[in-house]
Formats: sequence, C-alpha cells, structure tokens
Amino acid sequence: MKVGILGTATVGRTLAARLGQLGHDVMNGTRDPKATQARSDADMYGNPPFRIWSEDHPDIGLGSFAEAAAHGDIVINATAGGAYLEVVRLVGEGNLEGKVLLDVANPLDTSQGMPPPLLMSNTDSLAEQIQRLLPGARVVKSLNTVNAAVMVDPGRVGGGDHSVFLSGNDADAKATVADLLRSFGWTDIIDLGDITTARGPEMLLAVWLRLLGVLRTPMYNFKVVR
Amino acid sequence: MKVGILGTATVGRTLAARLGQLGHDVMNGTRDPKATQARSDADMYGNPPFRIWSEDHPDIGLGSFAEAAAHGDIVINATAGGAYLEVVRLVGEGNLEGKVLLDVANPLDTSQGMPPPLLMSNTDSLAEQIQRLLPGARVVKSLNTVNAAVMVDPGRVGGGDHSVFLSGNDADAKATVADLLRSFGWTDIIDLGDITTARGPEMLLAVWLRLLGVLRTPMYNFKVVR
Repeated sequence: MKVGILGTATVGRTLAARLGQLGHDVMNGTRDPKATQARSDADMYGNPPFRIWSEDHPDIGLGSFAEAAAHGDIVINATAGGAYLEVVRLVGEGNLEGKVLLDVANPLDTSQGMPPPLLMSNTDSLAEQIQRLLPGARVVKSLNTVNAAVMVDPGRVGGGDHSVFLSGNDADAKATVADLLRSFGWTDIIDLGDITTARGPEMLLAVWLRLLGVLRTPMYNFKVVR
Repeated sequence: MKVGILGTATVGRTLAARLGQLGHDVMNGTRDPKATQARSDADMYGNPPFRIWSEDHPDIGLGSFAEAAAHGDIVINATAGGAYLEVVRLVGEGNLEGKVLLDVANPLDTSQGMPPPLLMSNTDSLAEQIQRLLPGARVVKSLNTVNAAVMVDPGRVGGGDHSVFLSGNDADAKATVADLLRSFGWTDIIDLGDITTARGPEMLLAVWLRLLGVLRTPMYNFKVVR
C-alpha cells in the first residue's frame, strides 16, 4: 500500500520505518524538504537529523506535505497537534479527497510547561477540527494514546495485552486502519463510534501525561479490562 | 472509623453499605433528611427510595450534609459533581477542617444529553475547585473512574487486575485513602501527585462514558499496563 506520512519527527519516522519494514511504499512529508534534508543537528529530544536517519532507511521517500499526501492511498497525520491549521493548508484539500486520513496527533498546548493542557475544549477534538476542514477526507483517530514505539509494536508493553481506540465517521476507513493496526500487532481494537468520540482518547492524554511523570517511562498503555 | 458520606444515591449507598460491612460507623448526608426519608418512589434509574434501602441497612445513619460531615473522621463526596457549590455551602467549612475529604464525584454537565461533557475546563478539575473552596480540608481524588459496584469490589471486573488513581496535596490523607482502597480489594493504586493531577482521572470520563455506550455495561476499568 502507498502511505503518506505527514511529519518527520519521532512519530513520523517510527511509523515510516515500521510500514516500510511491512512492505509498504512510504513517503514522509515535511514543510520544506530541502530544509529537512539540510539539517545537521540533533533535535531537542536528541534524535539525529532526518538525513542521518534516512541513510538507514533508504526506501522511505521524502517530499512536501502535499507530495506525501498525494503519494498515499492512506495518509497519516504525525505532526504536532497545534500545527494542524498550517499542515492542512499546505497539504491542500484535493490531495486528501476520499482518502483515509489516520490522525495520531495530540492537540497539546506546549507553551505552558509540563504537563501541557489540551488546545481543544471539552466539547471538541483535533480529529473533529481536521474532519471539518477536510470534509472529503475520511478521518480516523487512533494510536494517539501511546508512545511511538508502542504504536508500531504493542508487544513491547505487557506482551501486547492492552487496548487501542478507533473513532471515525466512515466504517470502511476504520476497517482499513484496523487492518493496519493488526499488522502492527494490535489485538484489542475498540471502535468508539463517530469522529466526535475522538474527544475520549484525546482527553485521555491528561492522565497519560501525568502517568509519564510518575512512571518515568513512556512504555505503558491502558487495557480496558472487562 | 467514622465515615460521613455526602449523597444518598447509588454511589453514596454502595459506599455506605460496603463501609458498614467492613465495620465502620457510617452516616449518609443529604440536603433534607426528612424529604429523603419521606420519598416513596424509585429514582430515575429505578433504585428504590432511601427508606426501603435503609431497612436493609439499619446501621447506616442519615443526617444533613453538615451532620454527616461532622460525624466523619473521613468524609466522602458522592454527590452529583455539578452540585458541589451548594453541597460545600451546606456542609459548612468548619465541619471539614483538617479532615480527609475523598472526592469520588465527576463534574458532568448532564443538561446536554449523552455522553455529558465535563463542566470544568481542561485546566481545572472538580477536586481543585473543592480544595480551593475548603482550604482546610485535605481533599483526595480517587475512585471517580469506576462504577459504584467496582469502587467497593474491584474483584468484580477481571479479578481485580486493574488500576485506580490518587490525587491530593496531603501525603497522609492519600495514605489514609489508599488503606481504605486496599480494604475494598484494590491492589494497583497509582499516586499521580498533587490535587491538580485530578484533571487526568476526571478527563478520563470522556473515554469512559463512550466505552459505556460501546460495551453496554459499566463493569469495566482501565489497567495501566507497564
């Protein structure tokens, strides 16, 4: 499958590497590909520049946000949640028309220290905002409740015995994403309903970020025990 | 131990019955004890009137909010979250001075249909509002993330293999509540930190309420798998 991934930071790279490994044809998208390629310093989290990462992942393409979106049969939003207005504008509505847009981002207000509060009110979500901006896209929210390493390899936490959520208006799009999740190793995939249900997993970040402070590792997840 | 429980609905009754069974001296508090005793119809959820319940629980006292608060060495807020301003006023600040106030309530806006959104913004919580109104009380948030039946008997879901959270500014108060939780059967009790961390478990309600719609039972809980 052709996959476009918006974003070249940890989440975008981790998803790209795993999808490439699974045999998909992947292109990461960024604001300015030349600037991304030219960067020679590690980022604020100590991740190597994209160019170095790229040498280890020669099969992963790099293009603009619009090029990555055009490339993908399915497109994944792995940009910082707060950047969505600019990302959507740069992608261009036409490049996502009719496509599955898997939104794994979190709308965090990183201007206010740790833990960051959500940018959205309790009666909205990033996924809904993106769906409203791109009515032709088939937005599915998922994977935002776990760290990048866990997204693509749930077995790294508790043998994979934990849960992930799906929200979206389009049943076929959710089925496509569920197949992708199963290919990563996910077994307990809970369909919460339409795109408004994304408020639940996004607001889960409030406890997720506080657990990060207590557990001092991002390698955890919630299991819905029932 | 003497326990005052604010509230006489399902959560207040379930906590009272279990605490009485464990040998505690329990008094439920209500706005108007005479009116509560006089009620002869089931409530909107089909629960029998307090008087009928009371016949099966003769050791549980009933008083005003102020009397129940004065009675308790520890006091539990099991009222509807949206009623907190009136409840705090009726309890009276003096009756909670220095006491542990375990807040199990959720600030849900029930005027807007299902699932109800939270009344608080993403940068506040019911527990913090109560702590600000009652600076002399030692507020601890816990148990709000599970159904009443699970609160007092976690073994009813998945053999009890799931998690509960603690938030509060006072370490001794949290230790007292943790002992109470262990007496109910809880084993994985996670101290998130000060009272501001209550935002996490309160915002968890957004996904909890949507899972209720999907699973069609309130008998579930989250396990923090790590």
